[in-house]
Amino acid sequence: MVHAPERPPAGAPPVRINLYSDTQTKPSAAMLDAMMRAEVGDEQHGDDPTVHALCDRMAALMGKEAAVFMPSGTMCNVASTLVHCRPGEEIIAHETAHILTSEGGAHAALGSVQILPLTGPRGMYTPDQLRGALRGKSRHTPTQRLVEVEQTANTGGGAVWDRAVLAEIAEIAHGAGLSTHMDGARLMNACVAAGISAAEMTAGFDSVWLDFTKGLGAPLGAVLCGSAEFIDEAWRWKQRLGGAMRQAGVCAAGCLYALDHNIDRLADDHANAKALARGLAQIEGVQVQDPDTNLVFFTIGGTGMDAVTLQRALRMEGIAVSLLGGRLRACTHLDVTAPMIGDALAAIRGALAGR
Amino acid sequence: MVHAPERPPAGAPPVRINLYSDTQTKPSAAMLDAMMRAEVGDEQHGDDPTVHALCDRMAALMGKEAAVFMPSGTMCNVASTLVHCRPGEEIIAHETAHILTSEGGAHAALGSVQILPLTGPRGMYTPDQLRGALRGKSRHTPTQRLVEVEQTANTGGGAVWDRAVLAEIAEIAHGAGLSTHMDGARLMNACVAAGISAAEMTAGFDSVWLDFTKGLGAPLGAVLCGSAEFIDEAWRWKQRLGGAMRQAGVCAAGCLYALDHNIDRLADDHANAKALARGLAQIEGVQVQDPDTNLVFFTIGGTGMDAVTLQRALRMEGIAVSLLGGRLRACTHLDVTAPMIGDALAAIRGALAGR
Amino acid sequence: MVHAPERPPAGAPPVRINLYSDTQTKPSAAMLDAMMRAEVGDEQHGDDPTVHALCDRMAALMGKEAAVFMPSGTMCNVASTLVHCRPGEEIIAHETAHILTSEGGAHAALGSVQILPLTGPRGMYTPDQLRGALRGKSRHTPTQRLVEVEQTANTGGGAVWDRAVLAEIAEIAHGAGLSTHMDGARLMNACVAAGISAAEMTAGFDSVWLDFTKGLGAPLGAVLCGSAEFIDEAWRWKQRLGGAMRQAGVCAAGCLYALDHNIDRLADDHANAKALARGLAQIEGVQVQDPDTNLVFFTIGGTGMDAVTLQRALRMEGIAVSLLGGRLRACTHLDVTAPMIGDALAAIRGALAGR
Amino acid sequence: MVHAPERPPAGAPPVRINLYSDTQTKPSAAMLDAMMRAEVGDEQHGDDPTVHALCDRMAALMGKEAAVFMPSGTMCNVASTLVHCRPGEEIIAHETAHILTSEGGAHAALGSVQILPLTGPRGMYTPDQLRGALRGKSRHTPTQRLVEVEQTANTGGGAVWDRAVLAEIAEIAHGAGLSTHMDGARLMNACVAAGISAAEMTAGFDSVWLDFTKGLGAPLGAVLCGSAEFIDEAWRWKQRLGGAMRQAGVCAAGCLYALDHNIDRLADDHANAKALARGLAQIEGVQVQDPDTNLVFFTIGGTGMDAVTLQRALRMEGIAVSLLGGRLRACTHLDVTAPMIGDALAAIRGALAGR
Repeated sequence: MVHAPERPPAGAPPVRINLYSDTQTKPSAAMLDAMMRAEVGDEQHGDDPTVHALCDRMAALMGKEAAVFMPSGTMCNVASTLVHCRPGEEIIAHETAHILTSEGGAHAALGSVQILPLTGPRGMYTPDQLRGALRGKSRHTPTQRLVEVEQTANTGGGAVWDRAVLAEIAEIAHGAGLSTHMDGARLMNACVAAGISAAEMTAGFDSVWLDFTKGLGAPLGAVLCGSAEFIDEAWRWKQRLGGAMRQAGVCAAGCLYALDHNIDRLADDHANAKALARGLAQIEGVQVQDPDTNLVFFTIGGTGMDAVTLQRALRMEGIAVSLLGGRLRACTHLDVTAPMIGDALAAIRGALAGR
Repeated sequence: MVHAPERPPAGAPPVRINLYSDTQTKPSAAMLDAMMRAEVGDEQHGDDPTVHALCDRMAALMGKEAAVFMPSGTMCNVASTLVHCRPGEEIIAHETAHILTSEGGAHAALGSVQILPLTGPRGMYTPDQLRGALRGKSRHTPTQRLVEVEQTANTGGGAVWDRAVLAEIAEIAHGAGLSTHMDGARLMNACVAAGISAAEMTAGFDSVWLDFTKGLGAPLGAVLCGSAEFIDEAWRWKQRLGGAMRQAGVCAAGCLYALDHNIDRLADDHANAKALARGLAQIEGVQVQDPDTNLVFFTIGGTGMDAVTLQRALRMEGIAVSLLGGRLRACTHLDVTAPMIGDALAAIRGALAGR
Repeated sequence: MVHAPERPPAGAPPVRINLYSDTQTKPSAAMLDAMMRAEVGDEQHGDDPTVHALCDRMAALMGKEAAVFMPSGTMCNVASTLVHCRPGEEIIAHETAHILTSEGGAHAALGSVQILPLTGPRGMYTPDQLRGALRGKSRHTPTQRLVEVEQTANTGGGAVWDRAVLAEIAEIAHGAGLSTHMDGARLMNACVAAGISAAEMTAGFDSVWLDFTKGLGAPLGAVLCGSAEFIDEAWRWKQRLGGAMRQAGVCAAGCLYALDHNIDRLADDHANAKALARGLAQIEGVQVQDPDTNLVFFTIGGTGMDAVTLQRALRMEGIAVSLLGGRLRACTHLDVTAPMIGDALAAIRGALAGR
Repeated sequence: MVHAPERPPAGAPPVRINLYSDTQTKPSAAMLDAMMRAEVGDEQHGDDPTVHALCDRMAALMGKEAAVFMPSGTMCNVASTLVHCRPGEEIIAHETAHILTSEGGAHAALGSVQILPLTGPRGMYTPDQLRGALRGKSRHTPTQRLVEVEQTANTGGGAVWDRAVLAEIAEIAHGAGLSTHMDGARLMNACVAAGISAAEMTAGFDSVWLDFTKGLGAPLGAVLCGSAEFIDEAWRWKQRLGGAMRQAGVCAAGCLYALDHNIDRLADDHANAKALARGLAQIEGVQVQDPDTNLVFFTIGGTGMDAVTLQRALRMEGIAVSLLGGRLRACTHLDVTAPMIGDALAAIRGALAGR
């Protein structure tokens, strides 16, 4: 049977400190209780009151007219492309964007669009880069249609796009007749870090979604927001993509619980990330990127050990970290406590010393 | 806000007898309890043990090598098309097939394939019709690639394809170099009605899926089965379509519960459907199709009342039935008891008499 | 080497009477002379004066704002679909339409659209059928976007759609928010037969094209007409499809010659077709459809001979006819003279007698 | 009317020295004569003997099994992608490749594939870069399917890929299970410059095409070569894309003429390009790339004049050059003689001096 993309080393113990990803958070007992008590209906027929409650609340939170519940963030991205773009059009995004690197080529495969990659440190491009990337209509080039940002920028180190920069990007895009889309997989981390509301952060973006399965701790679900007309079309693509569900209120209830209980506490994750980064920075030969939010990227080029070896050594001690393009990534979230950060640092120091 | 495709008449009471669809079944307390206690992990990383248990069990039940959990049956159909077919190829299916009529044109939209519709009573075509539809390769016509059946045939009246006919269809298809796919939205209804196993019923079909949100009573989920290689590719499309989830074991646990508790009892739904059909047949002016399983289609052309009026009159008494292309459909399932059938018949008689 | 879709029987002589198709007409010496003397330029850069002259003239002839030169009629159809429709939308057409039966599934393959087939005699549907096929927007069905007619209806027997019917169809379509497209492969045959101008015949159609390689006798080329905005977008698809050419004026000059010399004479082809049909009708066991234009469809079910045998027998005498779905088709055009019709009838009589 | 992508300045005289592009060559009287005398037939039915002759000859020239005639090089590229790749797969190409920059996004639009851009000077990447770009199969990334090179590399300055490098690239690709495709728009320029045969140059490439409308001087046409099975599938896409033609032998005859008369003489174009480059190199402030073949790229950053101004000044003297991303490009071909090179240099010197 074909199950898994990545396997732990043989003999590895269960994971006790999971810094691999905030996608691996497990629903708490209280969240599960809320899920089991949810009032449900046929979501595909518009009859699930809990899904409606979640969508109404998300639309208000994001300052948009309407919202639709989706089984994943990837479907939010794919459906948005299918609504915003026609075949042969182009999306402008950072070269490290999830839509380009981690969705299996879905935007070309299903949306028949090309993505123009911009470069820049920390997963971000500048307004000037965007201006430079715009070109007029020609028979030889795809028509540019959509500008995308990822807030926070995952492989940029969980970096937070500045709100003023986002506003300028949206203005440039709209001025050129392009739409704007925000991949808000970890949007609330950005809002908490910046201390501003989601509506402020996403103003100027025609579509935006939030993932509930990362730091917010729900087992599944993402919500896409936009104008009523946009969401109506997104619903049609949700149906075609196979995202229309039945008693989805069971899952939506977990998301509502997350909105009530798991947003403010993201600040703890950020504090833990900063503590981890500070500790790592004190280890000789380790280079660490100062984290804006809950993702700590570091390299160990100066230690004499290679990243795969360290990842495996930690895993043999029940500590999971991930490896992305040569860099190690440690992710904090609601299943990671402050003492675990100390433990993890001690384990990393030990592994590097013990080689 | 754009929510729902169909709304009840103003002033309608809550639904007390829901014959609208078996998609509207609600998870029982015991099923919810099983869901709440499920061991979960990151499904997208192959780490959810409950999803694995469900997939392993489904592969065994269907007699296939492997299986993948999907958020919906539509995604099972769309992913199967994307694995089996290349753009410009053709699927042969009945003109009433769900893939042609109810998935928003997804197979053209996302799979770039054409569907050749065959006709025939009760949602079924014959092996001879299939033979007649096969044509050689030519530059002017799409290459035929896939033969599809829907078991049971929904708008055919929940009709059960005979196992011998299915075997012959698969043999014809394979003999001509085409693959075979079974939309098993209500497959277990067919197996229970025919008294044979799912593995026997689906032998000869390269891919098959079962929906857990219909008569099986789970809130969401469907499982697609096939060869290990097929499922590996289906997983890649699941990722692109946005069907890869996180702690999906919460939902998979409901499906496992359904496999344990809700299959044999489908016989009760069939008995209730037959009782309803017998009662309807005794009303003057009502024509009813003898049900193989849990779907009762009837018309009331001889009563002087039109179908929309009857549907609304019943809804005002808390009884929901659906309307498909001029025919009324009553669907039995685990939330419909034998006494409710009597009540529904009385209400129908009353509504028709009272005009 | 893979060359040809259909081969003559072994030992067959060269074709002396080519009733196979008007696509097989060969450019006359005068047409070739015009082609050779054409002023040319880089068509893809908008620098070919002969292509411009052809497009300007065609736009005027069809009463549209603009026109674009294409290498084939199929590209006119495919590009039109790509401009009019988005993925997941639906075209309404007759079940025998070229776009459905003879373009390799291109509209699904490249345009990701579904075609809803209407039925009806002589390749035509009625305005009432169109009204009945319209449905509201729903999440479960493709959005209807385009209504298509083929003038003349090829496998309908070269039948001519009545101008009033076309106007009504366009009115219904536009009233429902759909666009209209005319496949005018043999449009001038229809205009000559009906005695009205192309602009009158195509009024109400948002896009229409004329093929120059059929009765008009040019070696290659078709011209698609529509609004300036439509043609601008069609040009972009022409570029993507690989239809942008270089010194295409060589070919466009043949089309201009055809407009000057080969339209009025289509009446001769129609007279020849009628003479052939009259002759065939007098042969016992032969059923012939009365031709509106230059296509004579007939069956020989009552003669005791099968169609393939007759086709081969004629081919052995240097007479080519085609076979479409069991029916024989004889096509008249500028390489077929009135005496040839007599010869062909004699040969058919002889072949049927001699069996 | 929407005609042209680029217009000459007002008051510009006719072009007397056309260094704009070899796509603007006009068919010679002798070539036209050959075209007019061609024996023709219905190409789409495999009945055009001149098209057959051209395809047979091209297959032999390229050392492949079979060949198909296309209306353009872009269609050769698009059809190849559609045969080699399935939706969601990836092509590896240089970031300046025609398929990425100049075909309107067609490979995403029509083929639903993503292109992974490699960098490197002169439009070329190295075998090591290719090795580094290969990655294993994963659910999160598109499956890599095709490696593409452009010979010569147009915006790389008409640079010639070394035959040994091509062989290594093909070996790496095949070793990783990927196919290889060569965009041979100006392939014969590379062969003439390198002094080796086309079969040697393209060995290891599964598909390759040659454009006849550039230095070879024909008005339209390109021929795609590959295995018999590949070409058979390419024919099916040619039909869908609208590239199947009728009496295409008229055009194929021009290509046959070019094969006989216009290949060896490409050496003259290369000599003219070198002479032009030498002359430009002597002008102060002009930087010129040493040309491998017939394309001379130069910048004038050190002259105090900007490129657009020089382009317009030359055009006002009847000399056309093109401008690509800030660089000027002069292209030599059969309508450009050695004396014209001297004239052009004088004009450039004059324009720069006269500012």
